[in-house]
Amino acid sequence: MAHHHYTPTHYHVAIGPHEPVLRIATGDTVSTTTVDARGRDASNEQVTPRGNPQTGPFYIEGAEPGDTLVVRFDRIWPNRQRGWTATAIAPHVLDPGFNPEFTDQVDLAEWAVDLEKGTARMTSPPSPLGKIELPLAPMLGCFGVAPPRDQAISTATSSTHGGNMDYRGFVQGATVYFPVFVPGALLHVGDCHAVQGDGEIVGTGIEISAEVTFGVDLIKGRQINWPRAENADYIMAVGNARPLDQCVQHATTEMVRWLTSDFGLDARTAHLLLGQCVQYDLGNIYDPAYTMVCKVSKKVLEEIGAVRK
Amino acid sequence: MAHHHYTPTHYHVAIGPHEPVLRIATGDTVSTTTVDARGRDASNEQVTPRGNPQTGPFYIEGAEPGDTLVVRFDRIWPNRQRGWTATAIAPHVLDPGFNPEFTDQVDLAEWAVDLEKGTARMTSPPSPLGKIELPLAPMLGCFGVAPPRDQAISTATSSTHGGNMDYRGFVQGATVYFPVFVPGALLHVGDCHAVQGDGEIVGTGIEISAEVTFGVDLIKGRQINWPRAENADYIMAVGNARPLDQCVQHATTEMVRWLTSDFGLDARTAHLLLGQCVQYDLGNIYDPAYTMVCKVSKKVLEEIGAVRK
Amino acid sequence: MAHHHYTPTHYHVAIGPHEPVLRIATGDTVSTTTVDARGRDASNEQVTPRGNPQTGPFYIEGAEPGDTLVVRFDRIWPNRQRGWTATAIAPHVLDPGFNPEFTDQVDLAEWAVDLEKGTARMTSPPSPLGKIELPLAPMLGCFGVAPPRDQAISTATSSTHGGNMDYRGFVQGATVYFPVFVPGALLHVGDCHAVQGDGEIVGTGIEISAEVTFGVDLIKGRQINWPRAENADYIMAVGNARPLDQCVQHATTEMVRWLTSDFGLDARTAHLLLGQCVQYDLGNIYDPAYTMVCKVSKKVLEEIGAVRK
Amino acid sequence: MAHHHYTPTHYHVAIGPHEPVLRIATGDTVSTTTVDARGRDASNEQVTPRGNPQTGPFYIEGAEPGDTLVVRFDRIWPNRQRGWTATAIAPHVLDPGFNPEFTDQVDLAEWAVDLEKGTARMTSPPSPLGKIELPLAPMLGCFGVAPPRDQAISTATSSTHGGNMDYRGFVQGATVYFPVFVPGALLHVGDCHAVQGDGEIVGTGIEISAEVTFGVDLIKGRQINWPRAENADYIMAVGNARPLDQCVQHATTEMVRWLTSDFGLDARTAHLLLGQCVQYDLGNIYDPAYTMVCKVSKKVLEEIGAVRK
Repeated sequence: MAHHHYTPTHYHVAIGPHEPVLRIATGDTVSTTTVDARGRDASNEQVTPRGNPQTGPFYIEGAEPGDTLVVRFDRIWPNRQRGWTATAIAPHVLDPGFNPEFTDQVDLAEWAVDLEKGTARMTSPPSPLGKIELPLAPMLGCFGVAPPRDQAISTATSSTHGGNMDYRGFVQGATVYFPVFVPGALLHVGDCHAVQGDGEIVGTGIEISAEVTFGVDLIKGRQINWPRAENADYIMAVGNARPLDQCVQHATTEMVRWLTSDFGLDARTAHLLLGQCVQYDLGNIYDPAYTMVCKVSKKVLEEIGAVRK
Repeated sequence: MAHHHYTPTHYHVAIGPHEPVLRIATGDTVSTTTVDARGRDASNEQVTPRGNPQTGPFYIEGAEPGDTLVVRFDRIWPNRQRGWTATAIAPHVLDPGFNPEFTDQVDLAEWAVDLEKGTARMTSPPSPLGKIELPLAPMLGCFGVAPPRDQAISTATSSTHGGNMDYRGFVQGATVYFPVFVPGALLHVGDCHAVQGDGEIVGTGIEISAEVTFGVDLIKGRQINWPRAENADYIMAVGNARPLDQCVQHATTEMVRWLTSDFGLDARTAHLLLGQCVQYDLGNIYDPAYTMVCKVSKKVLEEIGAVRK
Repeated sequence: MAHHHYTPTHYHVAIGPHEPVLRIATGDTVSTTTVDARGRDASNEQVTPRGNPQTGPFYIEGAEPGDTLVVRFDRIWPNRQRGWTATAIAPHVLDPGFNPEFTDQVDLAEWAVDLEKGTARMTSPPSPLGKIELPLAPMLGCFGVAPPRDQAISTATSSTHGGNMDYRGFVQGATVYFPVFVPGALLHVGDCHAVQGDGEIVGTGIEISAEVTFGVDLIKGRQINWPRAENADYIMAVGNARPLDQCVQHATTEMVRWLTSDFGLDARTAHLLLGQCVQYDLGNIYDPAYTMVCKVSKKVLEEIGAVRK
Repeated sequence: MAHHHYTPTHYHVAIGPHEPVLRIATGDTVSTTTVDARGRDASNEQVTPRGNPQTGPFYIEGAEPGDTLVVRFDRIWPNRQRGWTATAIAPHVLDPGFNPEFTDQVDLAEWAVDLEKGTARMTSPPSPLGKIELPLAPMLGCFGVAPPRDQAISTATSSTHGGNMDYRGFVQGATVYFPVFVPGALLHVGDCHAVQGDGEIVGTGIEISAEVTFGVDLIKGRQINWPRAENADYIMAVGNARPLDQCVQHATTEMVRWLTSDFGLDARTAHLLLGQCVQYDLGNIYDPAYTMVCKVSKKVLEEIGAVRK
């Protein structure tokens, strides 16, 4: 149950079978830092090339293909006071041929982040939007484990191994489950957003460097197909693909598997329950693979006596 | 400012240029009833063929192509104590080739609806799900105005004219805006769901007959492209299409138009605001056209001084 | 076996349950004319509003829901010497954000059609493309039967009833099969293209008015799900939907049904055959519903002894 | 202008920055062999794990990021007399919920390949399909160059670097162009299909090991975005993505770029030309990324005086 401190010296823009920076055991926790999407650290210095650079990977002792890796985020919090966002909705999120009529040519907006008050406020460009303070909800946009088949997959995109899911539910307090594809799982973490709207439709949240503390565990011999997660209120299954329809298919199928295998529901009950109680969140509709999240209330599961095995 | 009572004698399974059942003026309200998706009324008798039969159409005096019709739902509430749902997630919402392993062959589930307590409980088939009471959140699944180009469009699907959107945000208290395509607009209403999960993934909510009271108004000479809506907390733009990606494009584009034209935001502020504050709801991913809803908080709009013109 | 001549006096921009202009019997043929997509006739006069106006509908005696209507096109040929095309690939056929750098602002191109030589040549705007003569391959872009559920569906789009499929295989010599949804089937025809590329990616072929001669027949009591067709070399099944993936699903499923029911192949042989011998054509990727066509060589079917029942 | 012979000793199931097996110069040719999709060689022995194992990579001297690699396939021909195919159309190519009614449980079909006659005939399972001989059209299903961003991408899928495109136009006589992302380009080749239908809808062509001879060249300092190709009759641009709509967007945009930059057409002429003359082929609709190919006739380009720079 060791607590490790790791100060990164290098980063990766693909998630793959890289040399581990630290070997940790189940039950251990790690405190480390992540740079922002452009490779800038807590002092706003660029220390590595842009593109959602990842801290890690962390080798989890005992993790083998076919296991499930459990990652509990104890802390995800910005470690500087300036963030930035892109300033235009991506063309593929708007009707084809609908071109915005901007009167400026500003590519980046700057945001002041008040770590004490827990708020962010846009400081440039000049805009009525600068009048308001948004509450911080810091999340990790991109994290995951080494994928199967000797792949190294760009941190621009996502798949069964996680990656650039840009889902604003991945905040501190969340626990995320990953399929393990390689010995040690090789966990990578990065790309904090201080705030993000659904869909990450401008292509960024409020991008910022961060302190991250996480704990790990293993479920030996239990294989999952897609990332799963939970927080105090919900269990969640994540689908990463294109188009969004396919994300929904993956996430819903994974939720049915979860409910029927781990929670012991018969298939009919799982379908009936989802039919009237399911909720979906849009992770991102910006990256090469989009993300949809299928959620079920823990309270409902408790009330019907569905207990996790 | 008349209040009309209309008792339907016939129904339509397409939304189109049908003979009006009532002519009403702006400011008027109408109380009427709707049958359930299979054509069953308050006494659970089948009175018309199945397929989301519509009550109406209602002719709104003065409505002309190029106007916007405003429909304020004052009451949407079941008028009987039994509802039903389908029992299996649609194959197209699950991974291709993922076939559920049901141990029964039940096509319909039955639900007892307690109109006093405001809850629904499944009574058959036998299932642990029958242990819980779901709070009622009665909504209209299918409603809209006559479409353009002399079309009559099946109540199975939806488009710019509304239709079978199956969005669980369309509850009493909501106001919905439609483009007017024909003189009188020709409003149709039907298909109440006592409860519905996101996406209507089994193809039904808890289907039930209902009492509906609505008021109408017109915004003369203001043309919108897609249905819009609002409730106490949000303004909403609705996109109906396939795949879901295209719903998001339509809904987001319509929201940008709304923010820049009616709320007077410059295009840059609209994009920046949506980037960090937008929310999306999944209406349905079951019907021939899917539905996604793009939402913005009224509180945020107020705080930045965006006032509706 | 009558041969009818019908000179249209009015047109429809939706395909639906309109009053028939002519009642014909199975075995009859009809010679008529169609206007171009903008409602211009053989003398290039605009005689009806734009939007793929349809000639008809023709009521086929004896046609009832559940039958299959057979339409054999004996002649589809332009009846004037000037056609026109749009001049820009639709934004949704290009990468989002890829904006063409035109140095002109020409919306329509004009084409001289030589009916004797059977060629078309662009006469404006000035372009090197004006140097070549394209061989005529006149096709009907939009035709079909009244859809189910009392619908009238815009001639901008397509579905199970046919409609705006914009497939360049629908030339004279082709036979097309439609499901019958209403008594008399109610066949509509229109929207000739003298030439068209795959996909109709600029939104038009060389749009032109035409002479059309067709014969009709019925297959009583045989129900199909999607339009089918054949020419000298291929049998074809047509899927109309969005995205293209779904068109392929519909067309391929319909072909499997055709091979197993009418041609008597066992399901395994149908799958194996399609696996190595299937061909697909892209009809259109421009209209609200896209079109893909699944084709199988008649020669292959003959060689394996697959005989139509 | 050396001619190399390379006998593979190991294979890769991802395309990435692997150690080169041979360094070759522009103008050189290489003769080598590929195993089939399950890792079986010319003697039908399994010599490496399944999954479209790749021969190579080949390091092309002088290739640098920003260049275009030219690969001319002089020979692609099976080197054994037995091939195999899958036996069922993939569920995602058929309508959701349409389940085939097979009366057998055969997973693989076997095919006899006559290398002299140039034909293939199915020998099991028993089926009328076994009566016919299909002409060989041997193609490479999966080949490409190391992708950008230190990625190694599974040979199950495809992207800008090529990969598992499964397009039946990639036969001997074809020349394929790739963007160069890493020094040496790192060309991988594999996955011969003796025959394949459009779309690879059962998930395989007639899978077989092969002899492959190719020559390489470089276009220094000319950057392309997607694979391009040509044969005697056509120039082709390739889009790899999901859904098919997006493949069409990528392929069409790349063709517009090619016509306007290399062939010197003005944008208007490129759009007008494609509008009436473009053709599309469906590569695959089976793999994680689908493939569509946008084609233009070389004859048409010659006739309008479009000369490659």
